[in-house]
Amino acid sequence: MNIQEIQLKSRPEGMPTADNFVLAKGSISPIKQGEFLVKNLWMSVDPYMRGRMIDRKSYIAPFQIGKVLEGGAIGEVIESLNPAFSIGSKVSSMLGWRSHFVSDGAEITILPNTPISESHFLGVLGMPGMTAWTGLNRIAQLTAGETLFVSAASGAVGSVVAQIGKLMGARVVASVGSDEKAQYLTSLGVDAVINYKTCGDLDAALGHAAPEGIDVYFENVGGEHLSAALNHMKDHGRIAVCGMIAQYNDTAPTPGPSNLAQIIIKKLKIEGFIVFEHWDHYPQFAAQMGQWLAEGKVQAEQTIYEGLENAPDAFIGLFEGKNRGKMVVKLA
Amino acid sequence: MNIQEIQLKSRPEGMPTADNFVLAKGSISPIKQGEFLVKNLWMSVDPYMRGRMIDRKSYIAPFQIGKVLEGGAIGEVIESLNPAFSIGSKVSSMLGWRSHFVSDGAEITILPNTPISESHFLGVLGMPGMTAWTGLNRIAQLTAGETLFVSAASGAVGSVVAQIGKLMGARVVASVGSDEKAQYLTSLGVDAVINYKTCGDLDAALGHAAPEGIDVYFENVGGEHLSAALNHMKDHGRIAVCGMIAQYNDTAPTPGPSNLAQIIIKKLKIEGFIVFEHWDHYPQFAAQMGQWLAEGKVQAEQTIYEGLENAPDAFIGLFEGKNRGKMVVKLA
Repeated sequence: MNIQEIQLKSRPEGMPTADNFVLAKGSISPIKQGEFLVKNLWMSVDPYMRGRMIDRKSYIAPFQIGKVLEGGAIGEVIESLNPAFSIGSKVSSMLGWRSHFVSDGAEITILPNTPISESHFLGVLGMPGMTAWTGLNRIAQLTAGETLFVSAASGAVGSVVAQIGKLMGARVVASVGSDEKAQYLTSLGVDAVINYKTCGDLDAALGHAAPEGIDVYFENVGGEHLSAALNHMKDHGRIAVCGMIAQYNDTAPTPGPSNLAQIIIKKLKIEGFIVFEHWDHYPQFAAQMGQWLAEGKVQAEQTIYEGLENAPDAFIGLFEGKNRGKMVVKLA
Repeated sequence: MNIQEIQLKSRPEGMPTADNFVLAKGSISPIKQGEFLVKNLWMSVDPYMRGRMIDRKSYIAPFQIGKVLEGGAIGEVIESLNPAFSIGSKVSSMLGWRSHFVSDGAEITILPNTPISESHFLGVLGMPGMTAWTGLNRIAQLTAGETLFVSAASGAVGSVVAQIGKLMGARVVASVGSDEKAQYLTSLGVDAVINYKTCGDLDAALGHAAPEGIDVYFENVGGEHLSAALNHMKDHGRIAVCGMIAQYNDTAPTPGPSNLAQIIIKKLKIEGFIVFEHWDHYPQFAAQMGQWLAEGKVQAEQTIYEGLENAPDAFIGLFEGKNRGKMVVKLA
């Protein structure tokens, strides 16, 4: 049958553009015994994918030019010769950026039956939500009464960090890039919000928002945000380093903060993490998050683009601050 | 009686100079009941003292202009009205930079009787040695078979880090600033030495010296050393941040490394520490180090300046790379 997929046409230099992507037509063979056919319903675009567009050694292999891209997706089984994957099953895979795929079941997860829209398994119940939970619980070990600072706080990860932070009993300070996003964060119940684009001096604004200092910084941005956080960390503060989106599109090396000596002065602990290494804790996370969602304690905001052909725009939009909550693409 | 002391005359801007210090004469009153008089025999100069010359909030109060400096010292009790501190006792204090002092015993430690020169309680058996041991054991948790990189490796801390690293079964790569120091490190048994001043490209030299990557980096320098280490850390590597001497005399902010995203890519753990917070483990350290010294397994190198009046030169010499091993001043 005929399918559609988005391929990497060229490696972006700096900010990705539409020219770096191509919508290609292809075909897939009829399924064989043990296989099944999935029609993708939703696919995820995430900042980490920018790193995979660079040809370098990292924790995950780089995308190849002329090949289909990959990423989280939710689909429905529409043909099956595998009894474990019956027609109508909703499945989660890392085979996004395409309309259909054939699988033998390897690395495919059947979604549970829940009243929650299956698209949230790409967001608050998926990789971004699990990233937020892992960074706070397993890396930074946030405790009640502490002050948490989170950057890129309106994003898929940040917005969940802010909400889990509140649920864990922390005072939460959030940084975002627009007044509209600031209002969104306020609606989520955070204690102080900084619009880093209009606040003037981020360092001073953070000092004002966290006058007694920061116990935990959930780092999504890097650069000026890291520098300001270092200045306002408390002694023995912890920094969970999830991302540095400010640098993902840099074409030349951008110097780091000049105040790294704060690491010594304040005896800070800084730890980078990749959520996939913590995936054995997913059931624990999912049970907790499922309960929070059922109780209405976590808001699962999404920004939805429609159509596979608009997936590149959705991806580029991540770096233009166009999403509030999780950015997803609805395929069918 | 008349005494001599070194006072801070002015706060250094950039590299300290002799003009920042003044040798002053003073007097102290006769001892009262419960007190004793100590004649200092040795005093320590250490890089961390540069930080105390800046008027800022830190883990230790800044030095005050016109007041005597402070730091580790070893002295002998020469008068006593305190039965716990008998005449002839050797004592360790934080009351260096002066010829004599009177004490009631608070924060004064009587040294054990050992065949080891008492000056080593300022070095390999004192704060620098304990710093090396703490960073490797309690912060980075180095294990046998791992690769350890240490910068400023000929210094009071670095030379002990290199030796403990070998005793713990690690492969040790050391960075120093002269060929003579490189020979010294080779004599200590390290596996590879880099002279960062002559190697050309430090990053390439480190890659050559540690082709399979670094498990633990003991950070004493900052700047280019940190950048190179980040590039060559293994996944899940640990960086124990003890000092950043390259920046202590900066008069303007020096940008940090541009490759901090390696913290995420390699899931690194970076931790700053101050040895004083770990002092409850001193007995464990001292027992181990005392044994190593007795067995000739650790070499306790010293660079000795003579006379209190030369203490400022000794201190300035730390930043000019004039010491090999521990820099101490012999007072009497």
